[in-house]
Amino acid sequence: MTAARNRQIVLAARPQGMPRPDDFKLVEAPIPSPKDGEVLLRTIWLSVDPYMRGRMSDAASYAAPVAVGGLMVGDTVGEVMESRDPSLKPGDVVQAYVGWQTHAVARARGLRKLDPKLAPVSTALGILGMPGMTAYFGLIEVGKPRPGDSVFVSGAAGAVGSAAGQIARIAGCRVAGSVGSDAKARQARETFGFDDVLNYKSENDLGAALRRVCPNGIDVYFDNVGGPITDAVLGHINLHARVVICGQIAGYNERGKEMGPRNLWQLIVKRARIEGMLVSDFQAREAEALERLGRWVREGRIKYAEDVVEGLENAPAAFLRLFTGANTGKQLVRVGPDKI
Amino acid sequence: MTAARNRQIVLAARPQGMPRPDDFKLVEAPIPSPKDGEVLLRTIWLSVDPYMRGRMSDAASYAAPVAVGGLMVGDTVGEVMESRDPSLKPGDVVQAYVGWQTHAVARARGLRKLDPKLAPVSTALGILGMPGMTAYFGLIEVGKPRPGDSVFVSGAAGAVGSAAGQIARIAGCRVAGSVGSDAKARQARETFGFDDVLNYKSENDLGAALRRVCPNGIDVYFDNVGGPITDAVLGHINLHARVVICGQIAGYNERGKEMGPRNLWQLIVKRARIEGMLVSDFQAREAEALERLGRWVREGRIKYAEDVVEGLENAPAAFLRLFTGANTGKQLVRVGPDKI
Repeated sequence: MTAARNRQIVLAARPQGMPRPDDFKLVEAPIPSPKDGEVLLRTIWLSVDPYMRGRMSDAASYAAPVAVGGLMVGDTVGEVMESRDPSLKPGDVVQAYVGWQTHAVARARGLRKLDPKLAPVSTALGILGMPGMTAYFGLIEVGKPRPGDSVFVSGAAGAVGSAAGQIARIAGCRVAGSVGSDAKARQARETFGFDDVLNYKSENDLGAALRRVCPNGIDVYFDNVGGPITDAVLGHINLHARVVICGQIAGYNERGKEMGPRNLWQLIVKRARIEGMLVSDFQAREAEALERLGRWVREGRIKYAEDVVEGLENAPAAFLRLFTGANTGKQLVRVGPDKI
Repeated sequence: MTAARNRQIVLAARPQGMPRPDDFKLVEAPIPSPKDGEVLLRTIWLSVDPYMRGRMSDAASYAAPVAVGGLMVGDTVGEVMESRDPSLKPGDVVQAYVGWQTHAVARARGLRKLDPKLAPVSTALGILGMPGMTAYFGLIEVGKPRPGDSVFVSGAAGAVGSAAGQIARIAGCRVAGSVGSDAKARQARETFGFDDVLNYKSENDLGAALRRVCPNGIDVYFDNVGGPITDAVLGHINLHARVVICGQIAGYNERGKEMGPRNLWQLIVKRARIEGMLVSDFQAREAEALERLGRWVREGRIKYAEDVVEGLENAPAAFLRLFTGANTGKQLVRVGPDKI
């Protein structure tokens, strides 16, 4: 039984600084009907991710912004309710990119069919989805870790950071990281196996804290955060260090230009490299990443954590948790039950 | 006939900000005698280079600082006056690293013998020396230019920048650059063949100036300067751009931490890379660079310019010209005549 109406969350206004609840609006629309080659999906899970802050802004970026009044974009897991394509049938569960809504029509081609027996389907939005692949390709292809390297991860308890740290340990590295609460520090150490963790909010001297948690310096820095922790790390890198710029969440709500110490001289001293990465550039290698990540999860070598907020109407609140650091683990929104 | 005494310039005090004349001191010492395997050199040319500012400071860097009271380090070209090694004989001209002095004893092994018939021996301190090799390896190995790329060089009329720009043109790139005077802009265009040049001192809007001189964006940025021009370039890079950090002369006289806009988000948007380089890492490939640079100079495909200050006592003034931008071309100090 489907709901009579499709509920959607649209962008009501472009945020200035930290988004506010009234930058979003819940609207209703008819449930659409699939055409040939399409399916009707009922959303079970919605992923909220830091990159969405960029879509709310009309500043130049790597992707077009959401229009004011337009549907918020995002990854989802949904159940096929009606199919007009031979590749999918009602009851199938798929990963889609259909945004913040309870129902959607999508082309069957381009949906990833999930096997609920292999892993909980919500993992298709986390460790076995975009965040996991971001960690895999960012660390392996940009960070180029070598066994014995010292790796440091900012946002170590987050969806991407926790995966990056665990992949680095599989690659034979020693791994430390930074988080924003003592609870996350404990989680990073005890659940995700980080060798050492610092809470940047309780350290007076980030440089001293880095020397403590990375006594042999830093060969690979996987940065999800930016800002002061990144400034401090750049003063602590080793010769030929690789810095992976994966995210800069500390700056996403900045108005105007964020200022910090210039750090390029340090790159000469250390002949080091800073490189930005975007997971979509590695789309052609999705199967490789998912096969390996899936194996490591099944073997218990990679753990993941999920933080669930109930109800599409609470998706804006769930999204804002990313910026206050309230979430522990991958932030998800449960939009509908597994089965109806 | 040698002078009765060796004249030397030593570091009198660690500079605060821009070095001043009394940070240096001219002293005299006996002319040393070579032992077995050594030669006595009479300095003809001394090179002054921006990196020497780092040696005057005791801040952590890639090389140890000059001690207060110690001889200023530097590359030289000199004539062998006396030899106790079979590989060199009096009258031979060599490139050495014996610092700011009129005479020096050096181990024969480790000196580069020059052929005055192939090129003026002063070029061993410029296009056929450290600056030329810095341009070659920095551009080729870190910048990785592809034919058709748009290359931008800061410090385009300098010893390294002028070479980097010309090598980029040989590699099939379009080349623009920045300089600090209209005379240098003319020199970069007319002598060094840059396609377009901006004078950063006379532009109100560096972003607009970059769009004018690099209408197709920037694929490779070869940075000798740092500071505001680099901030502006990072806003104008293309997808997969490579930024070579070769020098940051704009900041060498800064006291404390220099602040600027944070730019790492832009690296994600453009999946771009910033990498520091140091020519000494490529020492094993010196012959490759010198063979190619020598060929390009002989073929007239690479031009160079020299700016000569007379007399060892004027070496500090020559050095300071690098920071005021007074020099046009490779700054040299003539310490002695070609032949005595």
